[in-house]
Amino acid sequence: MALQEVLRYLDDHQDDHLKQLCEFLKIKSISTQPEFRDDIRRAVDFLESELMNLGLHPEIIQTEGHPLVYAQSAQREGLPTLLFYGHYDVQPVDPVELWDSPPFEPSLKDGWIHARGASDDKGQMFSHIKAIEGFIRTGADLPVNIKLIFEGEEESGGKAIFAYTKEHSAKLACDMVVISDTHLYDEQTPAICTSLRGLCYMEVVVTGPAMDLHSGIFGGAVRNPADALCRILSQLKDEQGRVRIPGFYEDVIVVSEEIRNEMLQLGHSDDVLKGETGVGALFGESGYTSLERMWIRPTCDVNGIWSGYTGLGAKTVIPATASAKVSMRLVPNQDPERIASAFSAYVQDICPEGVSVAVHRLGCAKPVQLPRDSALVLAGKTALEKGFGHKAVFIGDGGSIPIVGTFQEYLHVPVLLLGYGLLTDNIHSPNERFKITHYYRGIRTTALLLGEVAGLVPLKILR
Amino acid sequence: MALQEVLRYLDDHQDDHLKQLCEFLKIKSISTQPEFRDDIRRAVDFLESELMNLGLHPEIIQTEGHPLVYAQSAQREGLPTLLFYGHYDVQPVDPVELWDSPPFEPSLKDGWIHARGASDDKGQMFSHIKAIEGFIRTGADLPVNIKLIFEGEEESGGKAIFAYTKEHSAKLACDMVVISDTHLYDEQTPAICTSLRGLCYMEVVVTGPAMDLHSGIFGGAVRNPADALCRILSQLKDEQGRVRIPGFYEDVIVVSEEIRNEMLQLGHSDDVLKGETGVGALFGESGYTSLERMWIRPTCDVNGIWSGYTGLGAKTVIPATASAKVSMRLVPNQDPERIASAFSAYVQDICPEGVSVAVHRLGCAKPVQLPRDSALVLAGKTALEKGFGHKAVFIGDGGSIPIVGTFQEYLHVPVLLLGYGLLTDNIHSPNERFKITHYYRGIRTTALLLGEVAGLVPLKILR
Repeated sequence: MALQEVLRYLDDHQDDHLKQLCEFLKIKSISTQPEFRDDIRRAVDFLESELMNLGLHPEIIQTEGHPLVYAQSAQREGLPTLLFYGHYDVQPVDPVELWDSPPFEPSLKDGWIHARGASDDKGQMFSHIKAIEGFIRTGADLPVNIKLIFEGEEESGGKAIFAYTKEHSAKLACDMVVISDTHLYDEQTPAICTSLRGLCYMEVVVTGPAMDLHSGIFGGAVRNPADALCRILSQLKDEQGRVRIPGFYEDVIVVSEEIRNEMLQLGHSDDVLKGETGVGALFGESGYTSLERMWIRPTCDVNGIWSGYTGLGAKTVIPATASAKVSMRLVPNQDPERIASAFSAYVQDICPEGVSVAVHRLGCAKPVQLPRDSALVLAGKTALEKGFGHKAVFIGDGGSIPIVGTFQEYLHVPVLLLGYGLLTDNIHSPNERFKITHYYRGIRTTALLLGEVAGLVPLKILR
Repeated sequence: MALQEVLRYLDDHQDDHLKQLCEFLKIKSISTQPEFRDDIRRAVDFLESELMNLGLHPEIIQTEGHPLVYAQSAQREGLPTLLFYGHYDVQPVDPVELWDSPPFEPSLKDGWIHARGASDDKGQMFSHIKAIEGFIRTGADLPVNIKLIFEGEEESGGKAIFAYTKEHSAKLACDMVVISDTHLYDEQTPAICTSLRGLCYMEVVVTGPAMDLHSGIFGGAVRNPADALCRILSQLKDEQGRVRIPGFYEDVIVVSEEIRNEMLQLGHSDDVLKGETGVGALFGESGYTSLERMWIRPTCDVNGIWSGYTGLGAKTVIPATASAKVSMRLVPNQDPERIASAFSAYVQDICPEGVSVAVHRLGCAKPVQLPRDSALVLAGKTALEKGFGHKAVFIGDGGSIPIVGTFQEYLHVPVLLLGYGLLTDNIHSPNERFKITHYYRGIRTTALLLGEVAGLVPLKILR
């Protein structure tokens, strides 16, 4: 049977696949810092060469930002089509002094591969390419039609993939989008992520005096912008952790008891969460468990604040301005645009007298709810269970992957979030890593997914 | 008459005195930045040479920080003794790009001398030296005994002058300390400052997670330290501008109706204050005028705050820590040590669950109340009125000059704050300046002060 041959090929070539991933990880494809533009190009060349070798005729799509890399297998009538998405760009490496080994010199230690991008997302996206290689190198026909699109601006908020999806939805047409950029539930338990929170990221700037004032001479007679900003921010949530912005919860879909019960059965441990975050006590919206607070409830956080003198020692100023970055995580069906407007209006409303406040939008992403009963998604679950040898669960994720909403909106198909990483992979942090066995299992899982989806034909049952 | 000759000499030598001040102002005696250590030495040399030329046998006192410069005239039995204090160090010049002319290339424009230190305090302290020169160069006997002490750490919070005053109070013994490091009430009206607020400067550090967390993944389940800090800071004052720290007002001396009426008669304009500070509306403790809020009421201000991501764009973190600098201005008889303890206890008390808070003291200064009915102080008032040709007033100052309290405590004599500067001299800011006519009038005023004080003998009426 062809699939068995493919899996054997994949097992036999694990060492090669690890070496090839290391080559990919050596490329410093940091998208947000312009000095790495040549490295971005090298990452594109690397992918182009990989895909070319597989006979997939890659297309390099130039954009206003970094290129998109697209490829597809010969599309055969009557077969389901899967669109794989991933991103070849990585986060910056600062603070680089906290890395145990150089971020772009992949190091294999205790069963892990350490490097920037190992988990997010080079390691995960590369699993798909290697699985496809298994079919092609063993001479097996691909059992489904494959499309692949990789972008280089995921970590820098680029817009190219969004515009391309809208403009080329026919080209990207498929039966399901597959993305591996999430994580297992825990080291044993594979997971399909079926909800992502949305995002509404704002900047608040309070302005008072025309210049920093001497706090001795003028202190007591003028409103202090830093004080005013603190008053505003401390009114965003109440003492029970509930957001106070009028209308904030209006469109929130109440999650069913069934799903809440299913979440309870995951057996999530608050002690483990305390250990992961290093806090002495957890805190959140009353009436909800920690998992619910992270996955199915919206929230609001201060991400940064700055005003006045922040150096060593004492400087006696009343700052002229005070600023903060504040973001809200949203759940279905909260509309980021509407929430942004409500936030601005509320902040204006509660701004104390004697100062003025300006509110800017820095970014919005819609929350997404993904199907869990689609036959295609269930095929993904079966593949995961076979690939990782353990029952898979449905999970939520508190973070946002904005392209997911765009795929749903323009391609009208399910998106399967098939995570091969771990929550503890230190993505976006020093010492990013990817468990080597998970890399191999991920490759197998993708191959198995192709087989499972192929088993669903005739196609009419797919939708 | 000798004094008339002195005043004529001072009038005749205004150009010389201006040139000499410019030489003094060229020296980059920034005390807080170690790279200016040689310039500090040059400022000391400059003063040593000035005082040597006057036959005053200066003494350079080495300390753990920058040197003190001390000198005295021959002390004659039966004459009152005045101790002049000033500081030869200056503030840093950043942001230097906002200066209209280089800060250490004194520039004469429209009747002002522009340079770092022109008003604070080189110009003002140099007035005293020039007035004394008037007596010595005209061969007039000094009508009072003179002692001079200049320090080089006033702008950097150095401790040398405090230690020296405590250890050498006999050497510094005098009938009155004279300090010109304040300002006129307005361009016409000279003033004696009779109250200075004290200071209690604290740093507050809130700690939550062990590291910055992804605000998508964990947002909603842990207390955000920046949010907690805002909650703490917004509870330091109530909506009426009153400080909420328990016991904060307990030792505050209620200022008499007489003094409050006198302040009212100064005709202070809130519109002028709005213009000076650039705020649209004033705000402060209810029940008090703006002048009262700045001079005779204690207050609390956030001087700086920082946490999380403060760069361009969006970064989705829950910060691990959040910090703020907070200072309280105190009035008689608030005790800075006691207030610091009350502050710490209150902050601990209101710290929200899920984070911890640490409070550090960065500095304390006692509030001071200076006599306004001493014959010596009244002599100063008369000198000011003669020197500036306008009735003088008593004013307060919201700022702190910590050495004043130490002089009071260890020398047991009145301190006369005889300001020759203006509130609008841009001290500590770009484009510091000193009005040239005020420099000349200051020199005359110091000379007149010596005459007025001499007229008070026999000495017994002085105390």
